[in-house]
Amino acid sequence: MSDENLDRGAGSGAAAGHRLSRRHLLFGGAAAGIGAASAVGIDLATRPARAARRGAQITAPVAGAADGSETVAFYGPHQAGVETRPQAAVTLVALDLLPETDAGALRRMMRVLTHDAARLTQGQAALADSEPELAVTPARLTVTFGFGPGLVARAGGAAPAWLRPLPAFAIDQLDDAWNGGDLLLQIAADDPVTVAHATRMLLKDSRSFTTVRWRQTGFRRSAGVEKPGTTMRNLFGQVDGTVNLVAGTEDFDSLVWGGADNPAWLHGGTGFVLRRIRMNLDKWDGLDRAGREASVGRTLATGAPLTGSHETDEPDFTATTAIGFPVIAEFSHLRRARSENRGERILRRGYNYDDTPDASGVSNSGLLFVAFQADVDAQFVPIQRRLDELDLLNQWTTPIGSAVFAIAPGCGPDGYIGQTLF
Amino acid sequence: MSDENLDRGAGSGAAAGHRLSRRHLLFGGAAAGIGAASAVGIDLATRPARAARRGAQITAPVAGAADGSETVAFYGPHQAGVETRPQAAVTLVALDLLPETDAGALRRMMRVLTHDAARLTQGQAALADSEPELAVTPARLTVTFGFGPGLVARAGGAAPAWLRPLPAFAIDQLDDAWNGGDLLLQIAADDPVTVAHATRMLLKDSRSFTTVRWRQTGFRRSAGVEKPGTTMRNLFGQVDGTVNLVAGTEDFDSLVWGGADNPAWLHGGTGFVLRRIRMNLDKWDGLDRAGREASVGRTLATGAPLTGSHETDEPDFTATTAIGFPVIAEFSHLRRARSENRGERILRRGYNYDDTPDASGVSNSGLLFVAFQADVDAQFVPIQRRLDELDLLNQWTTPIGSAVFAIAPGCGPDGYIGQTLF
Ligand code: HEM
Ligand code: HEM
Repeated sequence: MSDENLDRGAGSGAAAGHRLSRRHLLFGGAAAGIGAASAVGIDLATRPARAARRGAQITAPVAGAADGSETVAFYGPHQAGVETRPQAAVTLVALDLLPETDAGALRRMMRVLTHDAARLTQGQAALADSEPELAVTPARLTVTFGFGPGLVARAGGAAPAWLRPLPAFAIDQLDDAWNGGDLLLQIAADDPVTVAHATRMLLKDSRSFTTVRWRQTGFRRSAGVEKPGTTMRNLFGQVDGTVNLVAGTEDFDSLVWGGADNPAWLHGGTGFVLRRIRMNLDKWDGLDRAGREASVGRTLATGAPLTGSHETDEPDFTATTAIGFPVIAEFSHLRRARSENRGERILRRGYNYDDTPDASGVSNSGLLFVAFQADVDAQFVPIQRRLDELDLLNQWTTPIGSAVFAIAPGCGPDGYIGQTLF
Repeated sequence: MSDENLDRGAGSGAAAGHRLSRRHLLFGGAAAGIGAASAVGIDLATRPARAARRGAQITAPVAGAADGSETVAFYGPHQAGVETRPQAAVTLVALDLLPETDAGALRRMMRVLTHDAARLTQGQAALADSEPELAVTPARLTVTFGFGPGLVARAGGAAPAWLRPLPAFAIDQLDDAWNGGDLLLQIAADDPVTVAHATRMLLKDSRSFTTVRWRQTGFRRSAGVEKPGTTMRNLFGQVDGTVNLVAGTEDFDSLVWGGADNPAWLHGGTGFVLRRIRMNLDKWDGLDRAGREASVGRTLATGAPLTGSHETDEPDFTATTAIGFPVIAEFSHLRRARSENRGERILRRGYNYDDTPDASGVSNSGLLFVAFQADVDAQFVPIQRRLDELDLLNQWTTPIGSAVFAIAPGCGPDGYIGQTLF
């Protein structure tokens, strides 16, 4: 078992344990989390303590070198692919349920999908794997399942209020080809062949129950080409992901896994938003460097706020220029995206895309903006609303796809993803 | 300078020197190669000898670990991206010349393209780089330029006879969206962000001279996830690339760089064929393992011929089964692709593709089959013709795009790609 694996295995259990105590604090002892944890057959008491994991993280940072044999644990109170350090390649697939796929069929499908996902993530061939030789390089593969409103309704379950299409925003130019879906598969690994093979096997499993609605592929820097811990750059050249929730912190647990307000079947799970955002690279390149830096409020060279010198420096929104203007402008993405309300935060875990342009364009590029949060309405929507009202970045970016899913909790080796729902 | 770099730098020069002596042998002293070598300003005498390089290759195999700082030399008698160990990610772009792009404009364009390609491959920002921070991770980036028949005609040059669309084959179902083009850019690196950025910068340079005809993106396993020297697997799960020309051998030099028959401007260059071949993964998976192995004549587990036990074992075409059938069938891809004529060989250097399927399909996958050979008519066409007549693999594969380009020779730091032509 690799460090990564150990890390996640321990983390998941410890995080769940921790969540409980935090819930007690926050919600006066509501022990909703216990149901989820016991439902997945995980004995929290046997897991190493959080402190031990944190220590391990600090003294032995995850190596940056790619090694195709590295695995991420599949089973646990949470699904992998959320806390997991983002892999280099992702394919996101949305499936629509066939009319005849009822709760019983859902259960059969999710048993098979869970089983094969678990195997593939550990470098084992899927049960009916037609290309078992392509399965031997897990490369930190994770498979994360999300349920759309249609699936929850089909299962006869209670959907959280936020599980519905996002409200319309003025900046949106949505193409229905990229919207919605009943079942989400987030398939990510440090190797695109591994992702392609896993995608193919899982689509086979789901074929008699679903049709493919959309499929989107994204990338970050290959594993090993950058120093571990380097924040990714997007295709605008910006350092993107500096201020983010960090796995293993209290904030992460309450804002990503939190959700005592969510229906019981979702405890241990979270909410998922995908925005496919086209970035107009040509128009962006037409702007000078100062203008580009002002639009976000951070430098392009290091990602430091315009009032600081290091990427992680706190921005100073009160600082003004010699002639009295704020150094970080009111309309900057940084200022608009940040809320006074500490509860309005999200985990950003997105990817670049750079697809074949159609005849009319030189580029077809942007972000698969992925955000995880326990309550989409309370966390994601207010940020997106503020950006919709005012954000200089909007001049170069256009949301063209939008989808919301509930990420079910994880499961144990005898269970399946979705067992708390159907 | 990395090992890889040293290796190529030395190899190019030594290979050119070697080519000369071989030409003397083959073509009774025709010294055509000297023109090409001196035209690019390379002093062959100052280069280390071939033997030294070979020794280095044997004693110090190229490390498999990814490291974003590794570079491949740009300047030399040959362009990089042919002898270079295939990188993990590629984008192939075909451009069409605007009507007003004459020989003078071609020269201006290729000067700029050459200059920026050279810089980017060394991890330096392009001259008018709008995202210089994306240029610092070369990850073995190579940029290889190819000229289509239209470009050679525009330059008023003599085209080799083979520089034209391939003959029609019965198996072809070509979509013109993937055919032809005037100028080819093969942009490859071990990192997709590096490829995306280089592609964008080079398309900017060429924008006022050309329009984009097509753009295709492919992948292999990420650098570092497999042992160095492992042959790639395609999406059928086959070991693909076992029997191939090897850089630094006499066969490679004569069959890839060879070409005293090519016009003088092309000496030091080669011929390039791209076949976009759709692979019907679903149909393939319907076939049992024995049937799939028979279709190629090699095992899926190791890629060994059905008459052997190791990947590199020589196939025995005379071996028969107990009931008298050949073990490697007449109709197998292996048998049909191999010629008695040792001159009918090619360098295969292809990539997998796995694009977003349209509404009708579950997969949109296949091979960007790339072949390099000094004479397309004498080397590629006879193989493709034999496969067209009979090859069991044809049941699962369909060529849907086809393009032929002349890969110009390399150049020195004061020159530009194409200088021998216009
Ligand atoms: C293509 C579209 C977008 C681009 C290019 C972009 C880029 C950036 C950049 C460069 C930063 C500063 C560095 C960092 O902290 O990561 C940032 C911060 C942030 N962005 Fe975006 N972003 C985009 C869309 C969005 C969307 C749709 C949302 C949410 C609705 C969002 C939410 C945030 C948040 C919460 C931060 C951190 C703000 C803080 O410092 O507290 N961004 N983004
Ligand atoms: C999707 C289409 C194709 C697939 C899946 C495929 C697959 C394979 C495989 C598995 C091998 C055996 C292992 C090896 O030596 O690499 C092979 C060998 C070969 N293929 Fe293909 N191939 C395809 C198309 C082509 C085409 C279009 C050509 C040329 C016109 C070609 C030429 C060759 C050659 C020359 C060999 C080596 C034969 C020898 O052993 O001498 N292939 N191919």
